[in-house]
Amino acid sequence: MMDFEERLEIDDFESEVMERIYSKPLLIKRVNTTSQIAIVGANVCPVESLDYEVPENELVNEDWRSRRTVQIFQYILLKWAFALIIGLSTGLVGIFNNIAVENIAGFKLLLTTELMLKHKYYKAFAAYAGCNLGLATSAAALCAFIAPAAAGSGIPEVKAYLNGVDAYSILAPSTLFVKVNVIGIIFGSIFGVAAGFVVGKEGPMVHTGSCIASLIGQGGSRKYHLTSRWLRYFKNDRDRRDLITCGAAAGVAAAFRAPVGGVLFALEEAASWWRSALLWRTFFTTAVVAIVLRGFIQLCSTGTCGLFGQGGLIMYDISAAKVEYSTPDILAVILLGVIGGILGSLYNYLVDKVLRTYSIINEYVTHSIIDPGPNGSVSAEEELLLRSYFCPNTDVSGNYKSFQCPPGHYNDLASLFLNTNDDAIRNLLSTNTVKAFHISSLFIFFVAVYCLGIITYGIAIPSGLFIPVILAGSCYGRLVGRLFEPISKLDVGLFSLLGAASFLGGTMRMTVSLCVILLELTNDLLMLPLVMLVLLISKTMGDMFNKGVYDQIVKLKGLPYMEAHPEPYMKHLIARDVVTGPLITFSGVEKVGNILHALKNTGHNGFPVIDEPPFSDAPELCGLVLRSKLLVLLKGKAFSNDRVLAGNKVLSKISELDFAKAGSGKGLKLEDLDIQEEEWDMYVDLHPIANTSPYTVVETMSLAKAAVLFRELGLRHMCVVPKSQGRPPIVGILTRHDFQPEHILGLYPHIRFQQ
Amino acid sequence: MMDFEERLEIDDFESEVMERIYSKPLLIKRVNTTSQIAIVGANVCPVESLDYEVPENELVNEDWRSRRTVQIFQYILLKWAFALIIGLSTGLVGIFNNIAVENIAGFKLLLTTELMLKHKYYKAFAAYAGCNLGLATSAAALCAFIAPAAAGSGIPEVKAYLNGVDAYSILAPSTLFVKVNVIGIIFGSIFGVAAGFVVGKEGPMVHTGSCIASLIGQGGSRKYHLTSRWLRYFKNDRDRRDLITCGAAAGVAAAFRAPVGGVLFALEEAASWWRSALLWRTFFTTAVVAIVLRGFIQLCSTGTCGLFGQGGLIMYDISAAKVEYSTPDILAVILLGVIGGILGSLYNYLVDKVLRTYSIINEYVTHSIIDPGPNGSVSAEEELLLRSYFCPNTDVSGNYKSFQCPPGHYNDLASLFLNTNDDAIRNLLSTNTVKAFHISSLFIFFVAVYCLGIITYGIAIPSGLFIPVILAGSCYGRLVGRLFEPISKLDVGLFSLLGAASFLGGTMRMTVSLCVILLELTNDLLMLPLVMLVLLISKTMGDMFNKGVYDQIVKLKGLPYMEAHPEPYMKHLIARDVVTGPLITFSGVEKVGNILHALKNTGHNGFPVIDEPPFSDAPELCGLVLRSKLLVLLKGKAFSNDRVLAGNKVLSKISELDFAKAGSGKGLKLEDLDIQEEEWDMYVDLHPIANTSPYTVVETMSLAKAAVLFRELGLRHMCVVPKSQGRPPIVGILTRHDFQPEHILGLYPHIRFQQ
Repeated sequence: MMDFEERLEIDDFESEVMERIYSKPLLIKRVNTTSQIAIVGANVCPVESLDYEVPENELVNEDWRSRRTVQIFQYILLKWAFALIIGLSTGLVGIFNNIAVENIAGFKLLLTTELMLKHKYYKAFAAYAGCNLGLATSAAALCAFIAPAAAGSGIPEVKAYLNGVDAYSILAPSTLFVKVNVIGIIFGSIFGVAAGFVVGKEGPMVHTGSCIASLIGQGGSRKYHLTSRWLRYFKNDRDRRDLITCGAAAGVAAAFRAPVGGVLFALEEAASWWRSALLWRTFFTTAVVAIVLRGFIQLCSTGTCGLFGQGGLIMYDISAAKVEYSTPDILAVILLGVIGGILGSLYNYLVDKVLRTYSIINEYVTHSIIDPGPNGSVSAEEELLLRSYFCPNTDVSGNYKSFQCPPGHYNDLASLFLNTNDDAIRNLLSTNTVKAFHISSLFIFFVAVYCLGIITYGIAIPSGLFIPVILAGSCYGRLVGRLFEPISKLDVGLFSLLGAASFLGGTMRMTVSLCVILLELTNDLLMLPLVMLVLLISKTMGDMFNKGVYDQIVKLKGLPYMEAHPEPYMKHLIARDVVTGPLITFSGVEKVGNILHALKNTGHNGFPVIDEPPFSDAPELCGLVLRSKLLVLLKGKAFSNDRVLAGNKVLSKISELDFAKAGSGKGLKLEDLDIQEEEWDMYVDLHPIANTSPYTVVETMSLAKAAVLFRELGLRHMCVVPKSQGRPPIVGILTRHDFQPEHILGLYPHIRFQQ
Repeated sequence: MMDFEERLEIDDFESEVMERIYSKPLLIKRVNTTSQIAIVGANVCPVESLDYEVPENELVNEDWRSRRTVQIFQYILLKWAFALIIGLSTGLVGIFNNIAVENIAGFKLLLTTELMLKHKYYKAFAAYAGCNLGLATSAAALCAFIAPAAAGSGIPEVKAYLNGVDAYSILAPSTLFVKVNVIGIIFGSIFGVAAGFVVGKEGPMVHTGSCIASLIGQGGSRKYHLTSRWLRYFKNDRDRRDLITCGAAAGVAAAFRAPVGGVLFALEEAASWWRSALLWRTFFTTAVVAIVLRGFIQLCSTGTCGLFGQGGLIMYDISAAKVEYSTPDILAVILLGVIGGILGSLYNYLVDKVLRTYSIINEYVTHSIIDPGPNGSVSAEEELLLRSYFCPNTDVSGNYKSFQCPPGHYNDLASLFLNTNDDAIRNLLSTNTVKAFHISSLFIFFVAVYCLGIITYGIAIPSGLFIPVILAGSCYGRLVGRLFEPISKLDVGLFSLLGAASFLGGTMRMTVSLCVILLELTNDLLMLPLVMLVLLISKTMGDMFNKGVYDQIVKLKGLPYMEAHPEPYMKHLIARDVVTGPLITFSGVEKVGNILHALKNTGHNGFPVIDEPPFSDAPELCGLVLRSKLLVLLKGKAFSNDRVLAGNKVLSKISELDFAKAGSGKGLKLEDLDIQEEEWDMYVDLHPIANTSPYTVVETMSLAKAAVLFRELGLRHMCVVPKSQGRPPIVGILTRHDFQPEHILGLYPHIRFQQ
């Protein structure tokens, strides 16, 4: 066993690297060495990496041999049953959420309009403002005090989880689930949406779906005896990942009633690993969601859901418009795409800035102080807007508000501002209604919504980005459509849809999934070529300036995300360059005291196990043992006084079942152990529990190639082995943190200027 | 350097494996050892594996360092330009194909009907039969004599290519491209479709798209000076794979006018590796296809394309039907799904049987003898059918044939049989036309089409499976709809769509892509939940009996396809168990004669390079060198008499550019070398050209884990290294063939009974 304080000798190391890079020797001081357990970025939340590797050792083989056909069948059946449960519950949450939002918003509006009709303008405004203020503060208070993890979109967190980063408070513990989900997300998003904030519900819905999936993935609760022997097969990161992917897909499907879009969203945006079996499972989940939604909508169409209106599976029906276009239309659409892409990436930039500002402010004050609700500066603006009304005829169908206008007329700005976001979008997308909105109203609304969307995203309530972006985008599109009226024959409603597409493409940077979601939202396949064109243009434009909004937020939150493409400078580094010491290894049969010492004094999660003479001819790497497994082994006291018989002790006391991974933050801890001092000199055999076939790379492999391997296989640890024989059989271990730009640039600060 | 005839000593090897599996020693004779170059299966066509690994060595690094920003920009720009070209040309081929089919079929029908109206029945029949016979034989003759590779669907071959199997005659050489594509596919499929065969055009279109992509991927032609220095970046398997994925997507998009469906088809069915960047590129390609199609359809709607009718982007419009359903409808749909799935898998079974029969027959006779054209037994049946006509009123819109009926009436069977497949499907999917087809007509047509589809697929003309399956399925669905009329309120047109979905799910086993393709074909999102339900059910049913039809054909063709999931018995084998000798290795600086000898006497494509004392302290694995690179090195005569200076020689004579991979079958061959006998004793340095960081696995890794790694990384060679030190640094090399069940079961015939 190596000395714990021993560091790998890395003399002349830095200059060697620099030589490789610049092809001439350089002398640069190493600046600082981030330790393997340090959290990258500003936020200091406990982050754990997930491990999607299939370990192999005696216990695992034993476990495999013991699985009978019926158990394998059970496992497959359960996978599908879980997918069904996720679909059902996400669908139910979605429909409940929708009904509540529509009812609260409807009630609020009824109250206001009634007062308006009686010409009690100030009372009406007070009622409207009061409602909003009350709803907003309760949503915010619930979130801030009970479930802070529920704030924001949730999609970046889900995305990070599926990339292999488990931030404790995000998804996992079932107690938090109740808070996050039932209280936080549902009430938060309901109140938020109903309070007239420019917030979407798809982020919270994705988060909800993932929380449900995560709860199921816990495999029940041993504490409450709510578990079963056959749930244990799900107690690993791989199966949980699959469940949470299904959950994310179900969330989008429920938010937009877009089942195929949900699958594609999970594939394109959320997931980092994908396999075709998963495609089928997510598809099943979203099909269940679609059926649940459809059933409830049919039920509600009989009027049993209060103010919840009639709605098909399609939210915004634009099929009334004739889709015919020629060259000038296409030129107009291209221009729309270019500007939309730029505005979308500006949106990302501003959201990023606002979030950074909030994170500073949030340190002393709760968000309620900066609540952009109706009593703040925005409400003054809103008040102003409410008074500058126009009253066109209601010669068009749609949810128009007559607000202070004579019967048969409506107020166009009020139809945008006083509606729920959904209805406002529906109005904006309405076709054959060229003159329905004044250009000035559209412009005012566009500016207001664009700013409000950015400001609102940062506050602590759960909120999505889709709806605000669609709202701003469709307003922008309609505006462009009005401006291009002289030269383009396309309906302004269709321009509105294309505007929404351009904004979505510019912020989210998705393609196929957005396309399908928009199709499913509008039920108009004839627009497909134009929507594709706009999405391509706006994504290209956006990519020139910055990253997609979710990637930005992941980065802002300091989550160690593994990018699909390695950075260019990684080509010039080799695996050995970023391995940081001290490397701690165990012997195949190790003393209990040494293990305890290592567990106490380091934060490492993986330790190489090395057999040394006289137990082997030369030192050889037996495998990699995980901290969690060591803790189980120590807890089970599988010790022996005899060095040779220690293995039998382990096999007799421990089975693979004991290693089932608990929910995040719930596993065994060092403090749970109760090891007497006289046991410190006993032996424990690590062979049966070590992963005997960890993935290895040779030390001279380029870091870029190693990073691709690491990400494609979803690893937590990757062993770096020496090129030449006669040296210790392992050079070091690469983890997720070693691939982070912060770590590498910390080691080699001059590398940034290369490339 | 090891002796070439030397084999690895593997005493007691078999019994050791059996011991691990059965936990008791067994004595079994090894049956036969498939060599690494043997072709698995019956077909003996030259198959080469593709290599998606990024090699690393001095030359590659030099190449990377020399790439300037402008070159990287060029590369990116070219990728998109290529996607554009693929989209444009596939779109053009698609539209040309469509116009030709419609015109030929229209002309044929005009001729027949005219004669009919003059009551010249026999002449009419003779004209019809003559047309068909002529078209069919010319299609078949063209294929059989000019481009035999163009026969069949093409999708299995594209699928195998994207899995990493390059069968020479399938995609690559540009000379064949002309034959396969221009003559074979286009004429073949046009004549086939127009001849009244039950064939689809999506398979040939996918093949066409891939051929175009492959031609582009060749990076021009050095022979005709049609290449450029910056095309060289595409001369590798990775970039070609991406291009061909785009091509496959474009093919589906062009065949069905379904751009999103095309992307999903490429993702779900065609591709074995996927990354999100590819999603965007395929999306771009299919968007181009959609725009091209749309443009031409608008052009043709003015009547400039002869008999090519008016058609939007949507092929079968069923939006006229009201989509409302209740419990009995859903039960009917579930039953439809179950039976459809069973019939679909039966279809697969029969196609497999028919193909096996044909492959025997094809050995002596050309297909024309078994041509099921109008003069064979089928035409007699057809004749019979033509006479049993009914003449309902033409109170419905659609492409109905009045065939021998008074004006204002039509013949329902003729409307199915005498139409192009597309029009027949359109008639079957027509909504609000319950009584349009007699049940008996539907039944006769269903049986005929089901059988014809199976028989036709095997003959030598290029043909797809989608259209025949949709045709049979929609007929089956309409039949079920008619039978369920008393209890179900769903329109028979919708039943027809669901029937098509169930057949597709039962044969192809795709989910999301089929769903989207059907949506794009019919423009009806309201049917989405039902279509999803049917697809799920029929896929589940089908999976119980056999594999998807494309997988079956891939297997039948004997292509060494790597499955996504390893077989269960692979869990019980380790990597060392399937490595077969003799392993041939080279020294870091090797004699020319030894290399020549190795290249001549083995078929291996990868050779480990090992540095031995005194050049290193202990034997160490430097890397893996490929046959193709060795040939380039020998051709370039980068030899030296001095062992130490050999490396400089290589670096001065060879650059990474020289290793650009030629089109398949076109690379350097051993016969192209001209090495004098006196050069045999000269030295050549393999370090600069060997891949210094090949992926390695330790010999004790389970075969299942190794197979997953192999497939996920898209490897051609995987090095197996010993667990313990002091042995030769490499145990063997795993290739695609070593993972094939035939190979493993050849080594361990008793393993089959386990599990």
